[in-house]
Amino acid sequence: GVLGSGDFARSLAIRLVCSGFKVVVGSRNPKRKANLFPSAAEVTFQAEAVKKTDIIFVAVFREHYSTLCDLADVLAGKILVDVSNNTEINHHKESNAEYLASLFPACTVVKGFNVLSAWTLQSGARDGNKQVLLCSNNQEAKRTVAEIAQVMGFTPVDMGCMSSACEIENIPLRLLPAWKIPIFLSLGLFLCFFTYNLIRQVIHPYIREQKNKLYKIPIEVVNTTLPCVAYVMLSLVYLPGVVAACSQLYYGTKYRRFPDWLDQWLQHRKQIGLLSFFCAALHAVYSLCLPMRRSHRYQLIEMAVKQAVEKKMNIWVEEEVWRMEIYLSVGIIALGLLSLLAITSLPSIANSLNWREFSFIQ
Amino acid sequence: GVLGSGDFARSLAIRLVCSGFKVVVGSRNPKRKANLFPSAAEVTFQAEAVKKTDIIFVAVFREHYSTLCDLADVLAGKILVDVSNNTEINHHKESNAEYLASLFPACTVVKGFNVLSAWTLQSGARDGNKQVLLCSNNQEAKRTVAEIAQVMGFTPVDMGCMSSACEIENIPLRLLPAWKIPIFLSLGLFLCFFTYNLIRQVIHPYIREQKNKLYKIPIEVVNTTLPCVAYVMLSLVYLPGVVAACSQLYYGTKYRRFPDWLDQWLQHRKQIGLLSFFCAALHAVYSLCLPMRRSHRYQLIEMAVKQAVEKKMNIWVEEEVWRMEIYLSVGIIALGLLSLLAITSLPSIANSLNWREFSFIQ
Amino acid sequence: GVLGSGDFARSLAIRLVCSGFKVVVGSRNPKRKANLFPSAAEVTFQAEAVKKTDIIFVAVFREHYSTLCDLADVLAGKILVDVSNNTEINHHKESNAEYLASLFPACTVVKGFNVLSAWTLQSGARDGNKQVLLCSNNQEAKRTVAEIAQVMGFTPVDMGCMSSACEIENIPLRLLPAWKIPIFLSLGLFLCFFTYNLIRQVIHPYIREQKNKLYKIPIEVVNTTLPCVAYVMLSLVYLPGVVAACSQLYYGTKYRRFPDWLDQWLQHRKQIGLLSFFCAALHAVYSLCLPMRRSHRYQLIEMAVKQAVEKKMNIWVEEEVWRMEIYLSVGIIALGLLSLLAITSLPSIANSLNWREFSFIQ
Repeated sequence: GVLGSGDFARSLAIRLVCSGFKVVVGSRNPKRKANLFPSAAEVTFQAEAVKKTDIIFVAVFREHYSTLCDLADVLAGKILVDVSNNTEINHHKESNAEYLASLFPACTVVKGFNVLSAWTLQSGARDGNKQVLLCSNNQEAKRTVAEIAQVMGFTPVDMGCMSSACEIENIPLRLLPAWKIPIFLSLGLFLCFFTYNLIRQVIHPYIREQKNKLYKIPIEVVNTTLPCVAYVMLSLVYLPGVVAACSQLYYGTKYRRFPDWLDQWLQHRKQIGLLSFFCAALHAVYSLCLPMRRSHRYQLIEMAVKQAVEKKMNIWVEEEVWRMEIYLSVGIIALGLLSLLAITSLPSIANSLNWREFSFIQ
Repeated sequence: GVLGSGDFARSLAIRLVCSGFKVVVGSRNPKRKANLFPSAAEVTFQAEAVKKTDIIFVAVFREHYSTLCDLADVLAGKILVDVSNNTEINHHKESNAEYLASLFPACTVVKGFNVLSAWTLQSGARDGNKQVLLCSNNQEAKRTVAEIAQVMGFTPVDMGCMSSACEIENIPLRLLPAWKIPIFLSLGLFLCFFTYNLIRQVIHPYIREQKNKLYKIPIEVVNTTLPCVAYVMLSLVYLPGVVAACSQLYYGTKYRRFPDWLDQWLQHRKQIGLLSFFCAALHAVYSLCLPMRRSHRYQLIEMAVKQAVEKKMNIWVEEEVWRMEIYLSVGIIALGLLSLLAITSLPSIANSLNWREFSFIQ
Repeated sequence: GVLGSGDFARSLAIRLVCSGFKVVVGSRNPKRKANLFPSAAEVTFQAEAVKKTDIIFVAVFREHYSTLCDLADVLAGKILVDVSNNTEINHHKESNAEYLASLFPACTVVKGFNVLSAWTLQSGARDGNKQVLLCSNNQEAKRTVAEIAQVMGFTPVDMGCMSSACEIENIPLRLLPAWKIPIFLSLGLFLCFFTYNLIRQVIHPYIREQKNKLYKIPIEVVNTTLPCVAYVMLSLVYLPGVVAACSQLYYGTKYRRFPDWLDQWLQHRKQIGLLSFFCAALHAVYSLCLPMRRSHRYQLIEMAVKQAVEKKMNIWVEEEVWRMEIYLSVGIIALGLLSLLAITSLPSIANSLNWREFSFIQ
């Protein structure tokens, strides 16, 4: 059974019909809404729909839960699946599912399907996430709903008992929360170092020697900025561990909670490290592009012409040759090692490593 | 119990013995076949093997299922595991497992293990897939077989009830079905653009000016072809969304099914996008190789010699310098963004994103 | 209940309290240890703690298991969770969990949580592995402990019955065992080829012509060594399959076990292949860096000056141009194909391929 006639109710009914279930839709105005639903689904009044079914998807806004109270008698003993979402994180004190359970104490409430969009439901799971997170205080009811999710083509994930409902309801509202601070941090660092390099490489030569070096902005200035950002970010990955160790030594105990800022910092290390790798990889690509530039070609030819006109044959400077060779080879090795670190942070690889292996690679 | 004495039956018996199970093999010619099986497994006549065991793996071709009908009485009440595969997708109307269940209505049939090769069974799961997909109408029987699979070192995956058997039987016959159209599409586009660029860069200069530019074929012509393919493929990723939106606006409803061709197109977007990324990445590598070519070096030296002989010192063309700098930096940024898109399409990362995050990154 | 007052017991108690469980800690010296535990956890004598609880985490070293024998009466009928680890792989004949079960035959023993570090327990699962491997001969007890693990924020993984305990206890001691031989192999190959190339490119020209080519060591010598290692490693991936096939043809049967060395070799193919890819990728990056070197620039200018002084305008050598163009384009294509192979060996992608697709790509 499906209660409600909105977009989500409609997609849910279509998907259930496609997966071979018998579906009864309960609406307050069945005649007007019937043409929205597939013909295989029966659209009828709410009380009648509830009577005919054992598992009822409540596709109704939280604000309208109380309107269902008239159905309390017919709903008694049935499984209610709460599919609702909120518009803000932690908008209400208790989760929608717990609120529904408190309204209908005679029913078994299962939270789930809220992480799916109406579009995913209708067209089947193809891109993105196929998981349906479920929680309930009743194991049997949860297992029944999990089997329905499986037949519909999704992967049910057991999230334990009802106290996880709040967490499940917050998931669709999340927008990469762990990445916000690291991204703003790296953007800030980039801006600082970019300004410094711009002044040093472009504005200063212009003021002092009236030389027009504006062409350096898109590649050379960016390319000297990226490794600075990468280095600072990489040091910010390993610094909090040292700070934490010092704090433990200072207080003479490892049983003291770290202050909040340090705790937050320790938790964002992975994201900071990946952004550091991203900057380092971009720096590598930028550097490899340097010899492709027109300006590089012109400088080379100008130098050759100058030497030819002066008939100077020996221009080899051993020290500069060595500096560049060592600089490049150290850079390549560093990039190779950073790549290994980045690969081991992929979820599927991290899951196959034990703690000893993970810290060995780190 | 294992019925059958083929390759799969043998590997299954070996694996079961290794995992600590007591195995009885039923063969129609136990004396001749006994030496094929490990000595810990008992090889006997079919009827006897069935009597001694509760869970029986039917490692027999579908064509020979009817020969087991004599055993119907002894088989009654036991769990039959159908491990068979077909040679063609949807070869028979009903799946092998459903056919077996119809022949032995007194047995509980579980479909599974067909996705494993005899080699994987024998040597243990190391490369590739460790999953064993199971389905059955009897939850208890399915759970028992799942536990056997686990002890054997595989990961059982519950695929719901018997109606999924057909799907499970088709899995080992699948050969990247979602990739076929996108790959032929990209090959077709590559051929068209390659021909065009070949005419433009090699054949035309030869006919008009008798210049031999054949050396450009392996790198330069390919390198101008790849970004064209990448661009067209990338536009084909975002075009169907626009077409779908227009069709919804035209019909004034989003409750109308898209035509089949549009639906197919919408479903292949991920693969088209990944091939576009592959072409773009190859283009980047090809471009980075340009300054390593002998031809590039010769052209550079020729230019330098010409300038030196004419004693021209100033060859700097500001416009060309800027064009190349901007072209390169935009290319690098585009590649970086495409890489992020490609990384988020890895299954383990896509599973950890919610719908809002996925569409934000897209 | 938690028995023990070490680091792990403490972290476990903190985590259980945070996840909303009522925790009783049993210590032999409750007064002295009480301040180590969170105030919400009750710290009391062992016998009392056991009486008050149904599920007891035994966070005690294996050596001290026998000290718990006094509690045998109060422990009877309860679930004991063995969280212990060993310091060496296969240190004892039977696993700790089986030893505990033999000491307390009236209890139900579940093995688990040993793969977590005290730090992960205390701070919650963020980096690395979130899985908690569980095994027990009692399904119901295992399921109860799995639910506790889930509420604590971990992913319980059912590893079957008690005979897997030994395997679970060895997991945290593992240090990339499958990688050891391939890594030493590639290091050995690298050293051999490096020495050969060093003699050929640096020492030989110095002895014969007194030319100082030392600057070639960091990049050019390494760069000619890497593809040699990559080629030999790649051939070592495909060679054992051929050897295995020959051995099968020679003995006229595929039912003969391979000798141990061949079996080991066949099992390490994936790791050898990935190291081959790593060397090939490094070779690509080194090669792309060649035109960025100062030495390359000096050689180019020297050549140009020489040509200009001699007024030679035509230096184009068609054969050398072609050799380089073909060499580069074949290299790029090989790298692209190797990348595809490397991507399909990621666990999350390998899991989504069937055997036919996997061998098609290989």
